[in-house]
Amino acid sequence: MTLPTTGFGFDVIARDADARAGSFRTPRAVVETPCFMPVGTQATVKSLTPEEVSTTGARICLANTYHLWLRPGADLVERRGGLHRFMAWPHAILTDSGGYQVFSLAELRDLDDDGVTFRSHLDGTRHRLTPEESMRVQAMLGSDVAMVLDECPHGAAPRDVVEAAMRRTSHWARRCLSAPAREGQARFGIVQGGAHEDLRIAHLEDIAALGFDGVALGGFSVGESREEMHALVAALGPRMPADRPRYLMGVGTPQDLLAAVAAGLDLFDCVLPTRNGRNGQALTWHGRVNLRQARHREDDAPLDPSCTCPTCTTWSRAYLRHLFVSKEMLAPRLVSLHNLWLYGELMRRAREHIAAGDYGSWAAGVAEAMRAGDEIGG
Amino acid sequence: MTLPTTGFGFDVIARDADARAGSFRTPRAVVETPCFMPVGTQATVKSLTPEEVSTTGARICLANTYHLWLRPGADLVERRGGLHRFMAWPHAILTDSGGYQVFSLAELRDLDDDGVTFRSHLDGTRHRLTPEESMRVQAMLGSDVAMVLDECPHGAAPRDVVEAAMRRTSHWARRCLSAPAREGQARFGIVQGGAHEDLRIAHLEDIAALGFDGVALGGFSVGESREEMHALVAALGPRMPADRPRYLMGVGTPQDLLAAVAAGLDLFDCVLPTRNGRNGQALTWHGRVNLRQARHREDDAPLDPSCTCPTCTTWSRAYLRHLFVSKEMLAPRLVSLHNLWLYGELMRRAREHIAAGDYGSWAAGVAEAMRAGDEIGG
Repeated sequence: MTLPTTGFGFDVIARDADARAGSFRTPRAVVETPCFMPVGTQATVKSLTPEEVSTTGARICLANTYHLWLRPGADLVERRGGLHRFMAWPHAILTDSGGYQVFSLAELRDLDDDGVTFRSHLDGTRHRLTPEESMRVQAMLGSDVAMVLDECPHGAAPRDVVEAAMRRTSHWARRCLSAPAREGQARFGIVQGGAHEDLRIAHLEDIAALGFDGVALGGFSVGESREEMHALVAALGPRMPADRPRYLMGVGTPQDLLAAVAAGLDLFDCVLPTRNGRNGQALTWHGRVNLRQARHREDDAPLDPSCTCPTCTTWSRAYLRHLFVSKEMLAPRLVSLHNLWLYGELMRRAREHIAAGDYGSWAAGVAEAMRAGDEIGG
Repeated sequence: MTLPTTGFGFDVIARDADARAGSFRTPRAVVETPCFMPVGTQATVKSLTPEEVSTTGARICLANTYHLWLRPGADLVERRGGLHRFMAWPHAILTDSGGYQVFSLAELRDLDDDGVTFRSHLDGTRHRLTPEESMRVQAMLGSDVAMVLDECPHGAAPRDVVEAAMRRTSHWARRCLSAPAREGQARFGIVQGGAHEDLRIAHLEDIAALGFDGVALGGFSVGESREEMHALVAALGPRMPADRPRYLMGVGTPQDLLAAVAAGLDLFDCVLPTRNGRNGQALTWHGRVNLRQARHREDDAPLDPSCTCPTCTTWSRAYLRHLFVSKEMLAPRLVSLHNLWLYGELMRRAREHIAAGDYGSWAAGVAEAMRAGDEIGG
């Protein structure tokens, strides 16, 4: 179907129970879903070129409004022709609202119903983020999908705090929709509600009624248990609008993605594959591999013998371990590439198995193999 | 002609005054000379893949025996099938003797006529490097060209110290030649003599008479002035064996290479293009560009408009500056690649102009354009 914003569309191509394979059409890219969006915080997916990122299958990546707003500045990016041209990423880009980083990184936050005043974590300068300012900054960056400003309380926040954040998020969502739109930029709403299923469902109904191009679940991976998250996503996914993209923000492990896809979610982002890759943790079809462990010192095997990424087809665990131990810059690069390759391949296979109608048994097998082969405790 | 070691050869293809273009044949690669060898200290040219390094035109790179001996260990590399397979570099590799790093990095050096005892800069363990041990370690690494162990005194060392180092270097060179040879591994001798032209000439005659596969000038860029170095190289180059490769070790800037090529040198290595690239200094046909300078903040031009490297054909100075200011890992990678591309292209054009017979005027024009456009003082 055609989405509210011109140039965007979404079609469900196949269904398997609650899971679905689809096609999210944007002016710059057709994004096959389920899909993982690599995180390019500061207009770069750390250590990798856009060309490498696209070889992992990604046709949409994420950039952080807070970071780019403060440095190099949204006006500077706009004068460069926008984010796509600046970073040389030809496919789609989704920007977040900036709110999450204001709450997690900035200093001296002063929150009111109109917005939030904060000091930059870089230089202490004062800034004010409102729903309208977030939309204005995202318009200057020129992303394909803009996220509304929301308030994300901590996972352990009491019920009344969560309810207040929901009310504010709903109010801000309406203001974001009323703000001037950038041509060719879609807008996604965000559902809050903490770990309370009834609040989540109520807030989902509120946000879904506003007519966004897509709906996101925010406020996960902020302190709740993995079991709580999986149960909530399973309850919420099927209730989200069937005719538009459903996005689970900031989640997660391959197993988290498999569970969320089963619940009917379409889009994901997470720093996990790149952050863990930089720290020497590779994600494979047989669980996590910690290259810093001595057992890999003389291991001539690749990270994953079934992986066709450049890292696995070229270098041994012994070499990758040597690079990490020697603090060589090639190390985070090669493992980040492998990890993103795994996420891309995981989503590609998920689409295939949804179309084939055996998603559930396939996903259970993948999750079990990852659990059984995992070499990292906890 | 065929060099002393089986599988190696060297032919001068063109001459222009003292400059020469040649072909250095090794079992794994034909190296067109003049040629720059990128430095892969710890079995990796920092931040780059072997494939990227080879796109710069390099068919031989350098690895450091001292570093690899201490970590991950030459025996471990040998069990992995040698350095080429370990790092996935299919072309030729030259290893240094380890001596230079022992003198510059290691602690508690105890030098005698037989060798040098030192403590590792990594963990303080005691090791002993002798001419035979250097050859044994380089044989285990499996490089295509091994360098003899030499003693390199400081550039300001008094004449008698330089003479003693020359005698020791000559003695060690003979011992290296007597050590068991690895099949398919050539050996290069090293000329010392400090900044004293008469000593340099005498030592060159001594080393050249020993029948190495190639002869190197060591002990430059260790404290002498640029003018002294250029004058010495100009005096020594034409006196070096005409029928084998001539290697100037550890030098230098593009202008240094142009001057040395004019003197008949063939092979070069230096950390400058990669080290300076990591620090935000790009080398271009119009001099050095410091990306940290504010003037590049909104500069949409590439590092060098005439450069065809991936960095210059994809990203602006404004983006590269943003990456450096934001401490992003992609920054050193993209500028290292550009700088190596410049060195590769400089050597390729030098070969063309030697063949065309106009090397001198071409090189003078290049050096003048680099001087005139340089934006970094000193």
